[in-house]
Amino acid sequence: MLTRNVPALSRLLNELTKLPGLGPKSAERLSHHILKASLSEVTALAEALVEAKKKIQLCRDCHNYTEKELCWICEKPQRRNGQICVVEDPLALDKIEKTGVFQGSYHVLHGSINLLAKVTPEQLYIPSLIRRVEEGVKSDQLAIKEVILAMDSDLEGDTTALYLQEALAHLPVKISRLARGIPIGMGMSYLDEQTLSLAMENRIYLEPKSGVS
Amino acid sequence: MLTRNVPALSRLLNELTKLPGLGPKSAERLSHHILKASLSEVTALAEALVEAKKKIQLCRDCHNYTEKELCWICEKPQRRNGQICVVEDPLALDKIEKTGVFQGSYHVLHGSINLLAKVTPEQLYIPSLIRRVEEGVKSDQLAIKEVILAMDSDLEGDTTALYLQEALAHLPVKISRLARGIPIGMGMSYLDEQTLSLAMENRIYLEPKSGVS
Repeated sequence: MLTRNVPALSRLLNELTKLPGLGPKSAERLSHHILKASLSEVTALAEALVEAKKKIQLCRDCHNYTEKELCWICEKPQRRNGQICVVEDPLALDKIEKTGVFQGSYHVLHGSINLLAKVTPEQLYIPSLIRRVEEGVKSDQLAIKEVILAMDSDLEGDTTALYLQEALAHLPVKISRLARGIPIGMGMSYLDEQTLSLAMENRIYLEPKSGVS
Repeated sequence: MLTRNVPALSRLLNELTKLPGLGPKSAERLSHHILKASLSEVTALAEALVEAKKKIQLCRDCHNYTEKELCWICEKPQRRNGQICVVEDPLALDKIEKTGVFQGSYHVLHGSINLLAKVTPEQLYIPSLIRRVEEGVKSDQLAIKEVILAMDSDLEGDTTALYLQEALAHLPVKISRLARGIPIGMGMSYLDEQTLSLAMENRIYLEPKSGVS
């Protein structure tokens, strides 16, 4: 077999499958792409990998990708307009930014609640969101008036939205979710910009729920 | 936008999309996996990439991946049994090896003829296959009796098989192709081993065609 007889390929496949979310089949395809590229291309890729991992950190406030303390959105005072849009990952944030319809700031959870896979709210940036909203409603300067839930339209996304709705219920903020223009079962980052613009414009305000348990 | 504001991510995406066959959407997903991994995991991956590219070469005879001059199949004299199985890439070779039904040697074309994408026979390891069969039928020791065409079951694979059938028609070898147990439109490397075993056992011998133009 290839992996038994070509140790360098075996090691590469092994390292690739360690990446979160990359299966053996994708790793196999990817290793194939890599061996077709030139050595200089692969060396440049290897350097870019390490550089990206070393330089890219999470924004202190919203946990978006950045190379500085604050991301390019949080560093602009005019983006602190009282609206926080909560997304699962930076790709979803980028999708919304590209539509241009949202002028507030973000909060990136870096995942969604998944009880089967044992992903609890504490493993996501949910406590920091609640803290941020609590502080925001107290202070006049940082006043937070609305939290927009822009999770993926799947079981984990819905679970996360429901959890946040309850966890924020005790705070004097409006909570909205994107309009159901999003096709059921589709991930945020696969959406076309027009559907996403519509869903943002037609967002639905949620009724306050009983406090979180 | 992410790519404009996080240069290290932009560079990574740029390097990833240079890999042959990797689109912008796959590169985006992959960069996401990479940023979720730890620095030590990414460093190990970067090293494995460069090591794989430096160590892995193509077998002198069949162009399979190897770290030596000959691959682990070509270095075994008993595998030179007069049968050559022609595949598009090393993944397809590996699939066939895993079934255990084939005891001959291989020839890896590293692609298929695609006239729209301007991939001609000369850009593949087709001239070396023809030379190998010509020499094989001349010499008693290396005698080649059968060429089995195991291309993908798609337009490019069929074009390549037809081309090879014509290009080898002047030589005294049997030419066969895998039985049509392979679902139409499916790539070799996605097949399950049982279907592949059946297709190998039920291979169909082709009628000699008029010589290549």
